[in-house]
Amino acid sequence: MSTTLTNGHVLHPDGSVSRADVRFEQSTGEIEAVGQGLAADRTLSAAGGLVMPGLVNAHTHAAMTLLRGYADDKPLDAWLSEDIWPAESALEPADVRAGTELALLEMIRSGTTAFADMYFHMDEVVAAVERAGLRARLAHGIVTVGKDEEAATADLQEGIDFARRADGEAKGRVQTAISPHSLTTVDESTLREAIQAARELGVPVHLHANETTEEVEPIVEERGVRPLAYGSELGLFDSQDFFAHGVHLDETELELLADRQPSVVHCPASNMKLASGMAPVEALLDAGVPLALGTDGAASNNDLDMFDEMRDAALLGKLAADDASAVPAEAVIEMATAGGARALGLPGGQVTPGAAADLIVVDFEAPRMTPVHDHVSHLVYAAQGSDVRHTIVDGTVLMRDRDVLPLDEQAVRETAQTRAERLADRA
Amino acid sequence: MSTTLTNGHVLHPDGSVSRADVRFEQSTGEIEAVGQGLAADRTLSAAGGLVMPGLVNAHTHAAMTLLRGYADDKPLDAWLSEDIWPAESALEPADVRAGTELALLEMIRSGTTAFADMYFHMDEVVAAVERAGLRARLAHGIVTVGKDEEAATADLQEGIDFARRADGEAKGRVQTAISPHSLTTVDESTLREAIQAARELGVPVHLHANETTEEVEPIVEERGVRPLAYGSELGLFDSQDFFAHGVHLDETELELLADRQPSVVHCPASNMKLASGMAPVEALLDAGVPLALGTDGAASNNDLDMFDEMRDAALLGKLAADDASAVPAEAVIEMATAGGARALGLPGGQVTPGAAADLIVVDFEAPRMTPVHDHVSHLVYAAQGSDVRHTIVDGTVLMRDRDVLPLDEQAVRETAQTRAERLADRA
Repeated sequence: MSTTLTNGHVLHPDGSVSRADVRFEQSTGEIEAVGQGLAADRTLSAAGGLVMPGLVNAHTHAAMTLLRGYADDKPLDAWLSEDIWPAESALEPADVRAGTELALLEMIRSGTTAFADMYFHMDEVVAAVERAGLRARLAHGIVTVGKDEEAATADLQEGIDFARRADGEAKGRVQTAISPHSLTTVDESTLREAIQAARELGVPVHLHANETTEEVEPIVEERGVRPLAYGSELGLFDSQDFFAHGVHLDETELELLADRQPSVVHCPASNMKLASGMAPVEALLDAGVPLALGTDGAASNNDLDMFDEMRDAALLGKLAADDASAVPAEAVIEMATAGGARALGLPGGQVTPGAAADLIVVDFEAPRMTPVHDHVSHLVYAAQGSDVRHTIVDGTVLMRDRDVLPLDEQAVRETAQTRAERLADRA
Repeated sequence: MSTTLTNGHVLHPDGSVSRADVRFEQSTGEIEAVGQGLAADRTLSAAGGLVMPGLVNAHTHAAMTLLRGYADDKPLDAWLSEDIWPAESALEPADVRAGTELALLEMIRSGTTAFADMYFHMDEVVAAVERAGLRARLAHGIVTVGKDEEAATADLQEGIDFARRADGEAKGRVQTAISPHSLTTVDESTLREAIQAARELGVPVHLHANETTEEVEPIVEERGVRPLAYGSELGLFDSQDFFAHGVHLDETELELLADRQPSVVHCPASNMKLASGMAPVEALLDAGVPLALGTDGAASNNDLDMFDEMRDAALLGKLAADDASAVPAEAVIEMATAGGARALGLPGGQVTPGAAADLIVVDFEAPRMTPVHDHVSHLVYAAQGSDVRHTIVDGTVLMRDRDVLPLDEQAVRETAQTRAERLADRA
């Protein structure tokens, strides 16, 4: 069945905006045409709105929505050891399912069509993605620190097994990655084995790197090289790999990234909330490093609204560069769309014939979005997730006129509330 | 007529939250009771929501909504000289009316019940406030730089005349201030005369101070003292005065503020977007300096959503203090409510019997607000302006179930769009 989004404006791949219709086909999951007066089996109104690529949340831990507002405003160490880790150790598979479904509901509502997740009980995440209709690049997060050899080996094996068994699930909308958690929470031999497995399976490596100075300094002290040089020696940072944060990077690491071309996933809200620092986004843009955007988990954000994240990226990028012209709106939209699709190695990110029909329609009719001098500016500096009217993934409409079709919103919210309360009691 | 907000939770002045009803009376404009089962002439459902004080936007230039998205991502000097000043010089009184009505529509929608404005053609702002029903502390912005003596004197006189003629308008909901623009854009003798006039009229002084290093350094070089010491010598910074920004403050200025107790209006989004710097909010809190929050004008934000501003204040405050426990959610809510009312010298800011009935009801039923572990956390880290269900000022309901009653939303938006386009053509 073909559908035409009618009477709206369209954000084109070159950043320009014009009035046009967009026709897509459910059976192929592709955009068929962008132009005037496109006949189709049915129409969906984009009047007063803008058709743009769906947003890509390139780094999150979806199930952590259950811990949204569970603990805030604490020093990082105490927050992790007193609140987050005890709660996570009490998480059951059904909690991960409930938290992920809540996350996917929030993503569909706020215009996110694809995401990268690194967590555990990941088969529950696959099932939730299958049901909700999004695209995802999923991985079991491998950690060895604090574990004996047997447990560490089992965690690595689960990371590899999950990457093998889940790749291609949900009619190909789920693809997998290998995720050693970070360069300091996974020992060297496990890192080597994980990377080798990723290469053999042909999936990317998704990890955390250079988020805090506390994570950078031990590597420099112990090994005499910067973290990204250490990772590169292990075989990391191929162009299909992607890593979150990249807050603390020196000149040699910028050069390494420009040379090797992995994607860096900037997480500005999390970096501010955890007082991690300011990523050198303008320098990364200047160096031609591929960039994407992520919310990180809901415990350090506390929402999964990529419109918030775009605004944060533009504002924080200017502050970090001490330059009001740094990290302009167009660059941020690129990071949140085509840059995210590139990072995850998934289709989407452009409104153009033949591209995946992963599309959203953003209303421009709120007082907050008036007047319209410049659509692109409004997307970054004024829009909110609640301005999204329709969400489409792989040619299927997941939200129509703010009505989420594949999920029962009331039931998902009630289950999440119940499980979150029980989790808080147990933790 | 009395109204009870039923079946919701209430944010109490001590920061606690409990289930309670709130009764207010339109004729007195006051909250009558907070408790269980309060009979009234009518009820308004707060089920699934939180009753809290209306938010106070303590520094904005409301009519600048017409320039929302007109120019972004440029160095500060070029942005002002090439875009903002030419547009402002072309602004007609009817533009100020249209832009202000759009701003008030946005404020009511996003839960702002009172604001401080400094602009020109201010009688238009009074008329808009009278119609829309908010509270405001209004001032004509006095500037002398770039003006001859006659024009400078006329501007000072307009500032004084407006403060005299508009104070008490809109049944007392409008009160006035004297607003010399800043310590560098107004000459010393005019500053002295403006401050003297404020003291004679018994109104506060509202100005910009210590926003950028470019504004601080010339005063230090020319006068050998920090800007706040200079202002203090002129008679500024009494406890009823308030000033925006305070980004660049040294230890002596923190002491001066702690001693004199004017209110500092923190504008985090504007400070990031213009790359002005990070205000030392945690240090100001520690020093006991009264704090409020403001959006600044829509050209440097680009919205007037105080929920965005609360989130920005908490996130940026942690980054500035290099401490994830700095500027906690409760402190930010205090800044946006009671702190704002204190800064502006206007009623409101607390849900308690006898206080002004300036109230909002925030929905907690969005996926983004689920689960609820902590209402206060969600208000700062997860809520958006679009979560506001009802807005009440001075005992009168201005928005009921997201329907803004005193303004015709469609007409206000169309007028703003038309006038913004004409302005862009003229400028």
